Amino acid sequence: MRAFVIDLGGTHATSGIIEDRTIVARRIVPPKGNAGLRSLLPCLTEAMRLLRRESGLDGCEFDGVALGFCGLVNSAEGRVLSTNGKYPDATDIDLPSWAEKEFGLSFRIENDARMALLGEHYTGAAGGYDDVVMVTLGTGIGVATMIGGHLLYGKHFQAGCLGGHFPITLRGRACNCGGIGCAESEASGWALPQVFTTWAGSEKSALAGMEINFENLFRCAAQGDTVAMAIRQHCLEVWASNAVALVHAYDPEIMVFGGGVMRSVDVIIPYLQRHVPPRVWTPWGKVKICSAQLGNDAALLGAIPLLSNKTFVRRLDVR
Amino acid sequence: MRAFVIDLGGTHATSGIIEDRTIVARRIVPPKGNAGLRSLLPCLTEAMRLLRRESGLDGCEFDGVALGFCGLVNSAEGRVLSTNGKYPDATDIDLPSWAEKEFGLSFRIENDARMALLGEHYTGAAGGYDDVVMVTLGTGIGVATMIGGHLLYGKHFQAGCLGGHFPITLRGRACNCGGIGCAESEASGWALPQVFTTWAGSEKSALAGMEINFENLFRCAAQGDTVAMAIRQHCLEVWASNAVALVHAYDPEIMVFGGGVMRSVDVIIPYLQRHVPPRVWTPWGKVKICSAQLGNDAALLGAIPLLSNKTFVRRLDVR
Repeated sequence: MRAFVIDLGGTHATSGIIEDRTIVARRIVPPKGNAGLRSLLPCLTEAMRLLRRESGLDGCEFDGVALGFCGLVNSAEGRVLSTNGKYPDATDIDLPSWAEKEFGLSFRIENDARMALLGEHYTGAAGGYDDVVMVTLGTGIGVATMIGGHLLYGKHFQAGCLGGHFPITLRGRACNCGGIGCAESEASGWALPQVFTTWAGSEKSALAGMEINFENLFRCAAQGDTVAMAIRQHCLEVWASNAVALVHAYDPEIMVFGGGVMRSVDVIIPYLQRHVPPRVWTPWGKVKICSAQLGNDAALLGAIPLLSNKTFVRRLDVR
Repeated sequence: MRAFVIDLGGTHATSGIIEDRTIVARRIVPPKGNAGLRSLLPCLTEAMRLLRRESGLDGCEFDGVALGFCGLVNSAEGRVLSTNGKYPDATDIDLPSWAEKEFGLSFRIENDARMALLGEHYTGAAGGYDDVVMVTLGTGIGVATMIGGHLLYGKHFQAGCLGGHFPITLRGRACNCGGIGCAESEASGWALPQVFTTWAGSEKSALAGMEINFENLFRCAAQGDTVAMAIRQHCLEVWASNAVALVHAYDPEIMVFGGGVMRSVDVIIPYLQRHVPPRVWTPWGKVKICSAQLGNDAALLGAIPLLSNKTFVRRLDVR
């Protein structure tokens, strides 16, 4: 199979061409400020045409256009249902018609965390497992769930992908989902600066003069900065508690952790492997906890299983 | 349809005869201390024979024996997988053979919270809804999940029924599931005495001389006892946070709350209706929150849909 793919995350936009398990070409599409998705579409169209030409694929057949989107989507109808601040105009755009008009191709959309899971299941860390929870730790906390080889959708396409919005502490921070004390509002990229600013003694931390992101947090913590160490510990506890909830929610045999935060995989995965299994009720055995293998490629490679329909169940099919 | 049913909860054992939506007869079977399930089986057999005779049903046809069990079960094979302290010998008992030998009938087992959901879906509060989360607030917190008209099972029959074991606070009490700060270990019947004992000032509360249960807690709180009011508030916050997680986990259109704690339905349901919808990300509309209609009858009436197979999907069928 050969496909165009677009990965629209919270802070990046990438277009690419995929052939089976290979990313033939890719191109970062510069964001257009907060101008929304409609004004980005011509750039995406242009990027895909360039990629096709550069790859010598003009005139070759493509099987479709797949879009991974950072929000709630109706995968059956190809619509964005709700966005969390980013691309607020996306709910009003007829994306299947855009793909048909520009490329004469069928269109499939999926939540970006679900796309990443499809990719890791297709050719990464979740290969050979049919009961998977994948957690993408990045700007937000994206979760996707596969049960019996099928993505979990629920009534309104929201089941299985809002695991970053389970409350893990009773009186925590307000989340941009409306919740309080969500895993995402306690330990994600967008929340970290707020966590740092309100942390006791933060003004004395080496972090105080830096950009507050997980890379700097883990580096300062490794160097013995006490505030950074305490915040790192807080984040690890949040992710572990969240993982316990996800195991209890979805009964996976494997949990895969990906996303930008996993640059600190050597700290995070051993912590989760040590603290999650003793806290979950799994009489069948021990849940496997591992890091993603595909990095930023996961969502791109998810295009093939998404378009091939193998792991996709329309809600009505389940009934 | 006509069926024998047994409801084995954390603190009760009931046997009964069900005809469609009617409980023809029922009988409480006195527990035999901690002697386990094997020694209880002859009492259950005897109780069901007596019920059949008293109901004038000797010689009439029955469609099966249904058992609702307070633990993890393999619904496809009719086995208990794991118990949480109660009936530890249950995992070693061949229950289908017992039912065949004693009654010549087929046997079906289900987790007790799932049985209650089946009952409420069949003829109670969840009637007409196919996407349901039911929470049973009692000795523990039982949860059951229906998506698209089917119970959610997962790989090891654990998905959808461990929602009482989502951690809702970071450094809470140890739960008997192995978890820390589970909803159940923070606000359930078995946890309440521990919560009370360690609550600041509890020795001055009117509750100090009483049995610590939710009935007394809600009565003392209504009378203005400040400790009781604070603990009631804590429990309400736990249940609301847990409900937020469950909506995000399973995408239901309706949440049904049952169990013994719902004697205080007039306090609990309005609190949840006020505090849960603003905290969940549901662009499709507003999740309905209501109390169960069938009380202790729910699990008994779940026998009919369980035996009729309508709402049961064996895991392998999903694949």
